[in-house]
Amino acid sequence: MGQRGYRAHMASAHEVVAAYWAAAEARDWDGFGALLAGDVVYHGPQTREQVRGRDAYLRFNAEGFAYDWHIAVRRIVGEGRHAASWVEFTGPDGPQPGLCFFELGEDGRIARITDFWPEPYELPVSRAHLVERY
Amino acid sequence: MGQRGYRAHMASAHEVVAAYWAAAEARDWDGFGALLAGDVVYHGPQTREQVRGRDAYLRFNAEGFAYDWHIAVRRIVGEGRHAASWVEFTGPDGPQPGLCFFELGEDGRIARITDFWPEPYELPVSRAHLVERY
Repeated sequence: MGQRGYRAHMASAHEVVAAYWAAAEARDWDGFGALLAGDVVYHGPQTREQVRGRDAYLRFNAEGFAYDWHIAVRRIVGEGRHAASWVEFTGPDGPQPGLCFFELGEDGRIARITDFWPEPYELPVSRAHLVERY
Repeated sequence: MGQRGYRAHMASAHEVVAAYWAAAEARDWDGFGALLAGDVVYHGPQTREQVRGRDAYLRFNAEGFAYDWHIAVRRIVGEGRHAASWVEFTGPDGPQPGLCFFELGEDGRIARITDFWPEPYELPVSRAHLVERY
């Protein structure tokens, strides 16, 4: 090691995703954009929606949700160039879980985001005898 | 290091979750149960269902889904005692994504599982101009 206490540091996938949600919550779109690859691709499989490129994805986030919303991180898991997050999104309809899977590029920026928003549903009768409710 | 090539190995959270899904797909309930803490707790937040304990959770999995189903792993991310998985579950209604967050106990067994099953929904008009479809 050359200089004491110094080493080149590329943020871990966990750190990048923590910064991503912190920037979103702060509406710090410059900081948010700095975490994204220029050719980032966002997929929402439930609606089959797709957004391509940093500028389009910034606009999607800044303009697509025109109401007060907040994000609280419940869990981030990172491994190599992959990460997953579980957040609680609170908008006009109350809190809702959001699950995201991330892939980082070689430069440590977010290259791919796959985003899921599960909704409440009725417990199937077929397994009701095998569970409790909470 | 004492013996060449030998070191005590506790499976990583990634490896444990890979084994969990492989055992489920194989209906290897003994192998599946060996990955679980005795006091494992399962939560399905969308239905607020809960299953407590290895025996109850084995029964839930073995008996709760009385039709042919298959699991294909799309992504596993592990970090320390946490992991997340994204699988494709195929049952009678076709393929569906399933997202799970896992916590392991100190002995490396799965102590807590939180399970999400997102469903398709209509793209909100409010952001339709900001996305493509795929």
